[in-house]
Parts: sequence; structure tokens; C-alpha cells
Amino acid sequence: MTYQPPAGARDLLPLDVAQKYWIENRLEQVFQRWGYHRIITSTVERMDTLMAGGAIDQEAVIELQPVAGKRLGLRPELTASIARTAVTRLARVTYPQRLYYNANVFRQATQGSHGGQQEFYQAGVELLGAGATVADAEIVLLLLDCLHSLSLDSWCLILGDAQLTQALLTPFAPDQRQAVRQALAALDRVALDDMGLSPDLHRHALHLLDLRGHPEDVLQVLGQLALEPEAQTAVERLKSLVALVRDVINTEAGSQRPTPALTLDLSLIQPFDYYTGLVFEVVTGPKQGCQVLGQGGRYDHLLGVFQAQGQGFPGIGFVLNIEALHQALLLTGHLPQDTPPSDWLVVPTVPQAAAAAFTYAQTLRASASLVRAEVHLADGELPAATRDLARQRRISRIAWIGPDGLPDIEALN
Amino acid sequence: MTYQPPAGARDLLPLDVAQKYWIENRLEQVFQRWGYHRIITSTVERMDTLMAGGAIDQEAVIELQPVAGKRLGLRPELTASIARTAVTRLARVTYPQRLYYNANVFRQATQGSHGGQQEFYQAGVELLGAGATVADAEIVLLLLDCLHSLSLDSWCLILGDAQLTQALLTPFAPDQRQAVRQALAALDRVALDDMGLSPDLHRHALHLLDLRGHPEDVLQVLGQLALEPEAQTAVERLKSLVALVRDVINTEAGSQRPTPALTLDLSLIQPFDYYTGLVFEVVTGPKQGCQVLGQGGRYDHLLGVFQAQGQGFPGIGFVLNIEALHQALLLTGHLPQDTPPSDWLVVPTVPQAAAAAFTYAQTLRASASLVRAEVHLADGELPAATRDLARQRRISRIAWIGPDGLPDIEALN
Repeated sequence: MTYQPPAGARDLLPLDVAQKYWIENRLEQVFQRWGYHRIITSTVERMDTLMAGGAIDQEAVIELQPVAGKRLGLRPELTASIARTAVTRLARVTYPQRLYYNANVFRQATQGSHGGQQEFYQAGVELLGAGATVADAEIVLLLLDCLHSLSLDSWCLILGDAQLTQALLTPFAPDQRQAVRQALAALDRVALDDMGLSPDLHRHALHLLDLRGHPEDVLQVLGQLALEPEAQTAVERLKSLVALVRDVINTEAGSQRPTPALTLDLSLIQPFDYYTGLVFEVVTGPKQGCQVLGQGGRYDHLLGVFQAQGQGFPGIGFVLNIEALHQALLLTGHLPQDTPPSDWLVVPTVPQAAAAAFTYAQTLRASASLVRAEVHLADGELPAATRDLARQRRISRIAWIGPDGLPDIEALN
Repeated sequence: MTYQPPAGARDLLPLDVAQKYWIENRLEQVFQRWGYHRIITSTVERMDTLMAGGAIDQEAVIELQPVAGKRLGLRPELTASIARTAVTRLARVTYPQRLYYNANVFRQATQGSHGGQQEFYQAGVELLGAGATVADAEIVLLLLDCLHSLSLDSWCLILGDAQLTQALLTPFAPDQRQAVRQALAALDRVALDDMGLSPDLHRHALHLLDLRGHPEDVLQVLGQLALEPEAQTAVERLKSLVALVRDVINTEAGSQRPTPALTLDLSLIQPFDYYTGLVFEVVTGPKQGCQVLGQGGRYDHLLGVFQAQGQGFPGIGFVLNIEALHQALLLTGHLPQDTPPSDWLVVPTVPQAAAAAFTYAQTLRASASLVRAEVHLADGELPAATRDLARQRRISRIAWIGPDGLPDIEALN
């Protein structure tokens, strides 16, 4: 009988793991240096937690067979779980809380997706209890530091604002907003022309088409629109954020870093619908296939969903997609190209030398630096065959353990 | 609306994560020094893979809602998944393959279990393609090295042999074997008396009761039994293994290590039924609640289950239960007692100092060693309140960033 992995299974062989670890280790270092602490939440959650008050599409969630009438599913993302944990188990901590995760998530495979893949790896942060622009700036700058730590340089950071986008769409009839938004996101002027909009609304829609590009240009266009006070506040906030981020980037760029490409895009749409302010994503350039490396935003109502009183509580975070980073990094040549070979093959030359071989291997392993020593487990093999195996495994030293228990060292080349 | 975590959810807060990482990091170091490489398999598997040819109880597996008629479940253990991966994706590697994992597994909560817990963390190894006693010894010695690396000293290693246990039970009628085995495992002499066994079988059963204790004593009792040649071979193999392990332990104990307690127990039963030779488990002492810290064994037929030709292929491995290790280690005081605090709180004293604060924090983080610096995100707070927060968070240094962008350093005590 032959067994196949399920469609979309994620099996990572040792080299894949080494490359994944290379990425995750760098991200984890950055998270820790910024004062973030790792949190691990349950892989299985109640469906109502995963839906996060209706913000996440139920069809994307992989459900378990119900047990005792309870509906459970596999998390499609981490933010809802972390919000739940923060509300139920972090009641007595000081704020802001800085949390990071490095975990797998699960999505129902849609038809026509790449091989029905359903398990993904993500690393990300949540900054809870801080609502000011300076908190938005921390998250954006932390994201840039993550990308810098991976030596990735061909990407663009796109900023938007969920509340402002909503305000700009308010003049359109509720049943038109989604279509207008999609046309804006696709830069589809013809679709806007064909929508039967009134001349005023059509002119407004064409204005909105210009709300994508260099942040300073877009902010200037926004300044010319007649906006409600709340939307005006969002524009001011976005302006402060862009100025603050630019300021830090320029100071640091003066020393060593390339200036990242920033775009402001008020048609930016995020996969999850719980964002209330700043939203952003990082995408690779067209040459790298415009892959979304990560995304995030502010969600000031999400924690309230998990509280009895339902009050708002500020939160902002981002997620980096490990698979997309891995793809982008494969092109740079920075990732490890091989798993590390063992440093030593310790060979008992006769069966009675086995105990001495294990003991000798253990003395080699007792080094302060990481020394990898494997004991040869084949009995009665010719030395030439053992040397061949060592070479195939890229092991450079053999310790032949004689009947007297003493080692005879041979360097291979 | 209030949301609760599902029954048995595993939420690990930062201190839990730090303690888990302390354990896993030590184990990973040991695995790597012994030449093992990490593998990550799919969390979701086809049910027939998880059943591993009938060896794993279907009721223990958490199933997903079937999609397109395919039955999928969450892995209850890793060995079947790794066997599948090795057969389907590691076809061209040299053997033996040394693989380790550090992963979560899922079990259907039984009624009356601790809070219905269903997600567990495990670290373990699989040694594939090596069938000799020396391979059994490597796995046992590696397990001992893992426990030593955790500075755990109050435990007992119990060795058994699945094939030999089966052979010793052959004289009993097939429908009696399970009851006899359970009575033996429970040392329940009365149950054996009450089973209505023939005088010969009753005498044999009482003999088997003695097959638990110091390995040398048990091997001596075994030597007096009339055994089939195959069982006799298993006894010889067990004898060689005990001698080899003792030999290594004694040499190393001469230097620094306490001699571990070894028990041979031919009534040892393992939770999964795919073992074909050596089986073993590590349990804490009665004072520590006789917790099973880990278990494993040889499974020479399991890889064959996943092959079209179905031939046998040797494999042996073990798993360590992170939660049980965590419980045992909490008693020792070795685990971290606190999450590491940030080294610096960088405070913009006026809003215009925010950019300089981020830049200064970044220069602190750029140290070769890990320096944790967080930027203070509260606006217009009194310095006394900021100092209080820093003390609550155990931060020992504040950098006050003035309107000129320059830092003023204050050490807290």
C-alpha cells in the first residue's frame, strides 16, 4: 500500500528547515531587540474566536469534526488568538505589551490554488495598548528592520488607512462601494466610467484614482479634498506618520541602509476586515513576482470583541509570510545551501570497540562550540566503503576506534 | 461578548515560552551534536497515514471536516509522518538517516482527562536504516544524554522488548493475552490466580511476574525459560544492549555523571502498537508522580507500510514530552523564573524627539550581544510615572531624549 501526503502538505526536509531557521532566527533576534516577547497560542480555537466578531471569512477556516456540539477550527491567522489570550490571560500586565509569534496557520484550499496548500508559516508581532502615531511608527520601523536583517532590498512598502478609505467611499451608494474599491485597486478607469455614476461621483472616483503613489504627492491631493473632520484627522495622522518614518529612515540611511521605497495607496485592501486605521503591506518588485512578503495594520476594536464590556483597546501588528520570504531569499543566495555535515565519523573497527566509540564520540561532542559526531552503525564494513560513505556525507574526519579502545584519526579530503 | 479558549487549549505566555525554549534549546543542542537534523512534517495528514497500517487507535485522532470525501486528521504523534516522508521524499539519501523533530501533536480529549487537553509538545528523534544493537544503544544513550543536558536526575529508564513480550505471551490463548499482560503490568497476582489458567500456564504467568527488575536479574530468569529460537535471539540482543549501555555509562560516570537507574520490564506496554523490538520509557520517581517523560522503541515494519513493495526497513526512535519535562524541571529550579526585561527604555521627552528616540534605540540594539531597547510610546507623561513604569517592567536604564535629539542617561535602582 502506498500512502501519499495530503494535497498541500508541508513537509520540510533538513535543508528546508535550515533555510526556514535562518529566516526565523534573524526575525526573532530583531523582535527581541525591540523588546518583544514570544507568545504561543492554541492551534485549535473555537470558531467564534477565529471569526473575531465576523471579521474573518468562515469559508477560509478549516473546521474540525464537532465534538459535543462545539465548533472548533484551525487558526487561519494569529491576531484573533493573541487578542483573545491578551484579554483573558494578560489582565494584570503593564501596557504596552509587545508580543511576537512564529507559528503555522491553516487555510481552506480554494480551487485552483497552488496544489491546495493549506499550512503556512508566519512570524509576526502585536503591539497592544498603544494607540498613538508613535506606535504606528514603531510597527512600520520594526517591519523595515526585519526586512533589513534578512538583507532583502527589492521590495516596496505600501501604506494605507482603512478608516480613511472607508470615509472616501462614503459618498457612493453602499451597494456600489465594493465595486468602486475594486476598480480603484485595479486602477480600472474604464470600470469607473461604466458604473453609471453621477457626474459628481464620477469626478470624485477619478480623484480617488490619484490616491496612490509617492506619499507626499498623495497627501497633497488629499489636502485638496473636502473631507469630514474625522477623515481629516486620519489624513493628519498619516502625514505625521510618513514624516516620522522618513525622518528615522533618512538618519539611518545616512549611515548604512538603502532608502526603502514607500508608497501611499488608499485603495489598499487587507485580507482580514478588522483594521481600523493604518494598514500596510510589503511586496516584492515585479521582477520578483510582486509577492506579498507581509502585511498588517491597526485594529483598535478587535480586543474589545473578546471582552465582556466590549470597550475598544488599541492594537497594531504585522505578519511576515515565511514562504514568501523564503522564495524571495532563494534569489539572493544568502540562504544556507547545504545542511551542516557531521564533523566526525567515529568507527568501531570491531564489535567490542562499540562502547569505546560511543565514549570517544561523547568527548568530541563535549566541546564548547557545536561539534557534530556520529557513530558508524554498520558492522563488518570494509574501511574503503566507510570512507566512501563519509565522503558522501561530507564528513572530513574519521576516528577509527581499535580493539584497545584507542582512536586512530584520519582526515579525508 | 466573552470568548473563552477551547477546553484544553494551550496558550503559552512569554514566561511559559521562555521555559519551553530553555528545554527545547538544550535538547536541540544534544540532537545536533549527535548528528541529527531537524525535519518538519505536515500537521494535517490523511487518516490512513496517521493510522500507520492500523497501529494507531482511530479514536485518539482529531479529524477534520471531510473535504471532497477525503478524510484528514491532526497528527497524534510524529513517527508515522516521518516514516511517510522518509519513504516518499528521502529516496536518494545515504543511510542511516538521523532526524529530529520539535512539534505539536493532537489527541482527542477523553472524558475525565485533565481539562480535555488536546495539544501537546514533543521533541524526539528517528534513526532510520540502522537495525543493529549498536543502533539501539545509540538511541538509548542519546536519550540519557538528553536527560543529562536538562540536569534531570530523578528518573528511571525502563527497557522492554515488544517481540519478546509477545513470544512470552504465546502460550496463552489469544483472547487471554491482553488480560494476562495487563495483570503483569499491574503486578496483579490475584488477577492471574482468578483467570482460570491451567496449572502449567499459571506457573508460566507467575514466572513472567518476575520479569521486571534489575536487568541482570531479569536476564538470568529469562535464561532459565525454555524459549523459541527467535525469542532466544531477542534475549541475547537485549543482553548485548544492556552490557553495551552499562559499559558506556560506567566509563562516563567515572568522570562526572550519576549512574542512571535501569530496569528491565517485559510487561512494558507502549501507547502505539508498531514496535517490533526494543521498547523503553523514562519515568520520574514516585516523589515526582511517576510521570512518563519520554518513550520509544524499534519499529522495523513501519516504513514498509508506506512503500508500494511493503518491505521491512529498520527504524528506531523516541519522543520526549515537553509538558512532562517542564513539570519535572519546575521542581528543580533550573528553569528561567522571569522573562528577560528590556535593557533600555528610550523616552522622547517631547513629540518632536520621537524620530531621535527611534534612532537612538536602534544604535543601542546594534550591539553584537543581544540588547533589548524599547521606545516609550506614551505622550505627555510625567517623568515620575515613566520611572514607575520602567521599574515595574524591571528596566534598569532610561535614555531621556531631549528636544535637541540628545540622550540623557539615567540608571534606575
